[in-house]
Amino acid sequence: MTPRFAVIGIDHRHVYELAQHLIDAGMECAGWWPVTTNPHVLAGFRKRFAQLPEVSDRERMLEDRSVQLIATAAVPSERAVLAIEAMRRGKDVLADKPGITTWADLAAVEAAVIQTGRRFIVAFGDRWGSPASARAKELVRAGAIGRLVSTTGISPHRLNRETRPGWFWSARTNGSILVDIGCHQIDSFLSLTGREEAEIVHAAVRSVAPERTPVTDFQDWGEMILRNDVASATMQMHWFTPNGLADWGDGRTFIVGTEGFIELRKNLDLAGREGGQHLFLVTNERTEHIACAGKRTGAYQALVADLRDRTETAMGQSHCFAVCRLALMAEDRALGRA
Amino acid sequence: MTPRFAVIGIDHRHVYELAQHLIDAGMECAGWWPVTTNPHVLAGFRKRFAQLPEVSDRERMLEDRSVQLIATAAVPSERAVLAIEAMRRGKDVLADKPGITTWADLAAVEAAVIQTGRRFIVAFGDRWGSPASARAKELVRAGAIGRLVSTTGISPHRLNRETRPGWFWSARTNGSILVDIGCHQIDSFLSLTGREEAEIVHAAVRSVAPERTPVTDFQDWGEMILRNDVASATMQMHWFTPNGLADWGDGRTFIVGTEGFIELRKNLDLAGREGGQHLFLVTNERTEHIACAGKRTGAYQALVADLRDRTETAMGQSHCFAVCRLALMAEDRALGRA
Repeated sequence: MTPRFAVIGIDHRHVYELAQHLIDAGMECAGWWPVTTNPHVLAGFRKRFAQLPEVSDRERMLEDRSVQLIATAAVPSERAVLAIEAMRRGKDVLADKPGITTWADLAAVEAAVIQTGRRFIVAFGDRWGSPASARAKELVRAGAIGRLVSTTGISPHRLNRETRPGWFWSARTNGSILVDIGCHQIDSFLSLTGREEAEIVHAAVRSVAPERTPVTDFQDWGEMILRNDVASATMQMHWFTPNGLADWGDGRTFIVGTEGFIELRKNLDLAGREGGQHLFLVTNERTEHIACAGKRTGAYQALVADLRDRTETAMGQSHCFAVCRLALMAEDRALGRA
Repeated sequence: MTPRFAVIGIDHRHVYELAQHLIDAGMECAGWWPVTTNPHVLAGFRKRFAQLPEVSDRERMLEDRSVQLIATAAVPSERAVLAIEAMRRGKDVLADKPGITTWADLAAVEAAVIQTGRRFIVAFGDRWGSPASARAKELVRAGAIGRLVSTTGISPHRLNRETRPGWFWSARTNGSILVDIGCHQIDSFLSLTGREEAEIVHAAVRSVAPERTPVTDFQDWGEMILRNDVASATMQMHWFTPNGLADWGDGRTFIVGTEGFIELRKNLDLAGREGGQHLFLVTNERTEHIACAGKRTGAYQALVADLRDRTETAMGQSHCFAVCRLALMAEDRALGRA
């Protein structure tokens, strides 16, 4: 029988990717709930997924025993409560990042996972959606750059002030910038190092340009340095992408090993090659450009198999919680709470 | 009368650049002292500068009243003592970076500058030798990327184990990695922000791969985060350049503003365009590649004029000391001494 998912929470446009990837990986959409804080996404979802059943009765989808998975891109601060409700109804949950925005939510979701035996998985799209990241991990694991020394991530995002819903501007509802965007890089660092632990060496957030935002305390800059027994990581994330850039941000990753290095240009190759997902590999023998666009990461296929077989190939449950935990720890550190 | 310089200290190959730039800027070389810890550089200097007088009597050059400037790339830990001696003999001093490796040397050189009225200038080649850096500063000052938010520097260097003299492997003689290589980025940050102060937010050094070095405590990784009232800076420096790279390191600078950003690829454009000194500018209007190779920074011309006119256009004396001071502060911080 084809596994089925339902969508509850279309407040962030990432829901398009969640739904499309699940369908591409062989799941069937039992329906989606059209209530939202974000009319842009409602219109966009209707347009992109005209064939999917719009279900105004949220309860019906949670009760539907043929639905195994609830996918959500609700307001970030509301994802945990929804996830717990869904798990208690016997569903696994796939949440857009950040799945968790507070320590209380993390504890509650962890408890619900234990109580219900269900899965709570956060889709860190920066890795799951990036064939260049997947290739980099393969290369590192194969020893192409020797022993891992460090990773450096630069994640600029376009502000798009006009189309952001109100909750976007508050760390209380959207999560701190370290939680909201930083979680991607924490996920990548743990994944690349094969660890679920790291020390927060440094973390900071700033509100550099409040004249650009409707509130004065929007965190438009975040930075972290993490370290574990394998490597160290420097992470930057910010909301300063100028309009003259061809994509929403010029995301970069630099991976340094003892015998080589890798650069990823995920979004685009600045004033260079077409498209995104560019990988540059330099070893002791050569410098090489590897085009990864159009390749599949296989993450969603693995997830669907995991949900069926109760395996953990796409993402371990404890890895997922480790990312959420480290992001909250970094936020505490940045705000002087730890 | 043509201003004259003499070279004392050919222990690092940077001396080639110092001498060549001074000659190109209109100075005459009165002579160079062939005593060195580094026979590679002796051979290289003789080959490159066959026409310049080799003077085995060091004293003669220090006594020569027609010599205004002593240029030195001596062992880093010996530069300060030489500089003080030269200043007491009425000479200005141009030192290869790092000019200063200890707090005691900094205090002594600062005192000597005051006592003698002479100049102690450190050539931070990463900026003085980089037309792309010079262009970036012009663009930032002209408001091309709005208000400055942050700078990020990545400075990999090739280890070249075979040709390094013994003093290279000890922080006592070569300076900490934050002092030796980090000073470039501190210099650039202060220059770009137009400030002589910064807070050391974070600093760390590591010995990641002692199997690659003749000692176990060689600092092959360094990182810093600085901040002042204008912007923040993330700085990385390390000794992991693989042999398959076409240059000694793939040095990058990312400069983020509220309305645009700049990337510098100083050494080379990885698997891309020919040569180095590439500047990429993204504003709200456009994405643009600006080739800066072959352009002049004018730094040495300005220095020669400064020495003649006692102006400070190339580098303020207090800027130079500020860079040295911040590098030592960062070293203290990294080593838990502050």
